[in-house]
Amino acid sequence: MIQSVAFIGLGAMGYRMAAHLPKHFNDVYVWNRNQDKAKQHAAEYGTQAVDLQKAAQADVIFSCLPTSQEVDDILSQVYLKKGSIWVDCTSGVPESAKKQAQYLAEQDVYFLDAPVSGQTVGAENATLTFMVGGDQSAFEQALPAMQAMGKLIKLVGGSGAGFAVKAINNMMMAVHLCAAAEGFTTLKAHGVNLNEALACINASSGKSGVTETALPQRIFSREFPLTFALPLLAKDTGIAIDLIREAKLSAPVIGLTQSLIQAADALAKPDSDFSTAVKLYESWSKITLE
Amino acid sequence: MIQSVAFIGLGAMGYRMAAHLPKHFNDVYVWNRNQDKAKQHAAEYGTQAVDLQKAAQADVIFSCLPTSQEVDDILSQVYLKKGSIWVDCTSGVPESAKKQAQYLAEQDVYFLDAPVSGQTVGAENATLTFMVGGDQSAFEQALPAMQAMGKLIKLVGGSGAGFAVKAINNMMMAVHLCAAAEGFTTLKAHGVNLNEALACINASSGKSGVTETALPQRIFSREFPLTFALPLLAKDTGIAIDLIREAKLSAPVIGLTQSLIQAADALAKPDSDFSTAVKLYESWSKITLE
Amino acid sequence: MIQSVAFIGLGAMGYRMAAHLPKHFNDVYVWNRNQDKAKQHAAEYGTQAVDLQKAAQADVIFSCLPTSQEVDDILSQVYLKKGSIWVDCTSGVPESAKKQAQYLAEQDVYFLDAPVSGQTVGAENATLTFMVGGDQSAFEQALPAMQAMGKLIKLVGGSGAGFAVKAINNMMMAVHLCAAAEGFTTLKAHGVNLNEALACINASSGKSGVTETALPQRIFSREFPLTFALPLLAKDTGIAIDLIREAKLSAPVIGLTQSLIQAADALAKPDSDFSTAVKLYESWSKITLE
Amino acid sequence: MIQSVAFIGLGAMGYRMAAHLPKHFNDVYVWNRNQDKAKQHAAEYGTQAVDLQKAAQADVIFSCLPTSQEVDDILSQVYLKKGSIWVDCTSGVPESAKKQAQYLAEQDVYFLDAPVSGQTVGAENATLTFMVGGDQSAFEQALPAMQAMGKLIKLVGGSGAGFAVKAINNMMMAVHLCAAAEGFTTLKAHGVNLNEALACINASSGKSGVTETALPQRIFSREFPLTFALPLLAKDTGIAIDLIREAKLSAPVIGLTQSLIQAADALAKPDSDFSTAVKLYESWSKITLE
Repeated sequence: MIQSVAFIGLGAMGYRMAAHLPKHFNDVYVWNRNQDKAKQHAAEYGTQAVDLQKAAQADVIFSCLPTSQEVDDILSQVYLKKGSIWVDCTSGVPESAKKQAQYLAEQDVYFLDAPVSGQTVGAENATLTFMVGGDQSAFEQALPAMQAMGKLIKLVGGSGAGFAVKAINNMMMAVHLCAAAEGFTTLKAHGVNLNEALACINASSGKSGVTETALPQRIFSREFPLTFALPLLAKDTGIAIDLIREAKLSAPVIGLTQSLIQAADALAKPDSDFSTAVKLYESWSKITLE
Repeated sequence: MIQSVAFIGLGAMGYRMAAHLPKHFNDVYVWNRNQDKAKQHAAEYGTQAVDLQKAAQADVIFSCLPTSQEVDDILSQVYLKKGSIWVDCTSGVPESAKKQAQYLAEQDVYFLDAPVSGQTVGAENATLTFMVGGDQSAFEQALPAMQAMGKLIKLVGGSGAGFAVKAINNMMMAVHLCAAAEGFTTLKAHGVNLNEALACINASSGKSGVTETALPQRIFSREFPLTFALPLLAKDTGIAIDLIREAKLSAPVIGLTQSLIQAADALAKPDSDFSTAVKLYESWSKITLE
Repeated sequence: MIQSVAFIGLGAMGYRMAAHLPKHFNDVYVWNRNQDKAKQHAAEYGTQAVDLQKAAQADVIFSCLPTSQEVDDILSQVYLKKGSIWVDCTSGVPESAKKQAQYLAEQDVYFLDAPVSGQTVGAENATLTFMVGGDQSAFEQALPAMQAMGKLIKLVGGSGAGFAVKAINNMMMAVHLCAAAEGFTTLKAHGVNLNEALACINASSGKSGVTETALPQRIFSREFPLTFALPLLAKDTGIAIDLIREAKLSAPVIGLTQSLIQAADALAKPDSDFSTAVKLYESWSKITLE
Repeated sequence: MIQSVAFIGLGAMGYRMAAHLPKHFNDVYVWNRNQDKAKQHAAEYGTQAVDLQKAAQADVIFSCLPTSQEVDDILSQVYLKKGSIWVDCTSGVPESAKKQAQYLAEQDVYFLDAPVSGQTVGAENATLTFMVGGDQSAFEQALPAMQAMGKLIKLVGGSGAGFAVKAINNMMMAVHLCAAAEGFTTLKAHGVNLNEALACINASSGKSGVTETALPQRIFSREFPLTFALPLLAKDTGIAIDLIREAKLSAPVIGLTQSLIQAADALAKPDSDFSTAVKLYESWSKITLE
């Protein structure tokens, strides 16, 4: 039975995710590098803003940080309770997860790599998807805490598997983004009405998450709101490449897409949304996707 | 007002599409190269099996043939009624549509390129998507006949635009297929449970028509039922490449995918479903997607 | 026996090529769209500046024009002598060569597609390479005229084969250019001395015409002199793609390179040398190849 | 002044390289995992077959092993003389070179990464190219020993730079191989005479080390003699990819080529020469390059 839950990292995702925990658990600790945010969270949602050592004493500790590097930094600073479970929601590196799990196992602590999808709206509505790697019994123990924030929660394999699925998901999304940019640039060059074409494609076999959401809402609208930063997508595509290299596989379309996302990122302004990657194609074709 | 409608080409799609017409129109003519099929259709659905010249006298004539070449062959054999409208549902060549429209315009006949999506199940339920290129008023006149068979019916641009949207739709689907094959091969190499991973991705940003349908139903099931032949997909990807070349655009991901589909087709058995293209990757990785 | 030779098109190549003909043949006619250039050539080299019809009466007529389109325009304006041979040194389209050969065959005139390599220095020294497509006996008859300007002269196949070899040669050069740009950008990012690295590679298996010439002389020098225009390279890579499409082949590396050259051309200033294509990579990497 | 030189690893390259050393140095030690080969070398060339510890006491120690892993294994077993220089001719990993140099620096020993090119014929004739990374003064001290076996010997940068240049050289060669396979497959599909086309291209801008050597001698001849194994080329292309990833660069053509070489290797028989990679294309096109 989970008595206490901690949440480390109150960014756009973590802040909203941790808000659901007090509805289900008595002791909910929050910690953030900038502690003002933790205090604000406590005031707003009835959580407890504590220091890092206190947070680390919870039964289940969630972390949601920019990269696996920040998770390593935190892990090296804390002492954990035997039998507790660390659930890392960072979009992290599979290889790091394996090392982190091994490191914590020596302290009789479980590590689950448990990245999420669903964006801030999913965090707000507790409808996130959790793709989890690690030990089956630890997964089952931590499940009620994840269920407080998510809807679809799957154990996809051993340590690192959750991060791998997240990286591949984002990589596939990047491929779909390039396909959409190339396809719709071509249609516009031939005088096709893009909105009508999009309606047809979204009712046909060529649809994707990108054509259903990013294309109409962020790209055709020319708004490009910052929901998922392009450098983070570039990072995730790099993780996918490392997975392919490690297994000595051939993945030509993914490889090419990674090069293009990297190039788009190199040319983009800071704080660009991932959807601005289409501007790489727009610069080549002198065509604006709208 | 449409008095008579003809349907030329009673293949897997055409046979089912033409079945809906007698519910809405008094005179429905059907013609097929093998006339036995036309007679069977007449017996089954109350259409009239007629010769090609008679079919060509309808107010609206649909054609649904393997390629634009067969449409050209038929067009060169028939005399059409002034003011009638030829609606070609073939997945044809945009450049051919322009020539066909010009050729028929000289006879005061309209040509609409109107390929469909939705597969045989959409044809059966009259829920097809029509992506139409051509003249606005001809589109409006022929609309009731298309509505008898389809649900989403869009004029996407001038002559050739319908074929262009279909080719790009299928091309994007091919890209998504490669992305899925590469992504899931990588996950399997890392010991991830593919079904659980698919569930997560289908609830996330990396989903596509391919991950929602082809992957679970045709590929993971190892059934590869023949629903859309790989050589036809190879043909459609070639049409997409021609559109890109004609407009002098850069579409590296589409270009690479076309090469891979072409290679997969060269290695595949005759009558292979498009989904067997994943076997190209399976041969490289010694991994079976199941 | 060749009595008279004509040369049509006195550009940077043609002007120098035609200069060798009077040393070997009595009657040498020259024609240029801007006739002042023809008169200057006659004054300088002892050729005869004539009108197009007169030039067309020679035993062997060379043409050296920007594209196959200009050759078609000229061919449609002239009457040729039975038994004469038209030798087209344009970097033209294989499909056009087939049509041109057929068109001239009806007038009992031979057409050889005979593009050259060796640049202006090869034209000046009569050391060009001729890659020739067409009829064997016509090749043998025209050989002495080609030998006046070239060193290596090869019949590579039937009509169009010469243009095909030239297009593939230029396409391969474009691939080598991209490989060099990517490889040396990577080395510079890792602090390697580029000149020393180039010396090693030029003595090793990774060398190419690009690493031996373009890289040290045009790129590392940052001079980018206009020797072969980037839009012409883009055109030639397009011809290569059409050859691949026509034969339904898979050529992924060539396909990708064509996209990159097209993109580089779209971003380049007018009158850019082909070697400026490396600036596409320099913009992505913030690295200058010098 | 170098008094003693050792050579560790008497494979096809090392055996021939070490043979030159007794002409220039008094004490030349050789060591091989299978010591019979060392004894044979001593008998044949006047070197001294010694145990590993003795070899490690030389002033300059060369190693030439399959991968950096074997070098690490040897280094962990030996004690070296202060001030001695280890010259590693393996086609190794740049990152390993940095670690090896740091590890040996703690023992006051220099490490130079010094891979060679020129194949067995270059080893036999002492005309190898050495591309060297490391300390300038160590390079100058070891130079006479390298000059005994090589012709062009260049310091290309700090530790790892030599391995980087070798990996990029081999990667570029792999790109040129793919370009040649794609280009000549296309020409053959269009009925072009490949030998004549090759002669033209080798006199033109599209030539490369591959078109000058591998294509006529190994591929068109259908001999594919084992001179450089395909799995080793696959390994080297992987090193190139890691260099690109580490520097966060975009190298689409190199990335794609690496995928293709990996696929070719997965499909090839054991002990295949790198030139058999063209069979990947031959299987797709049903065309044999001869």
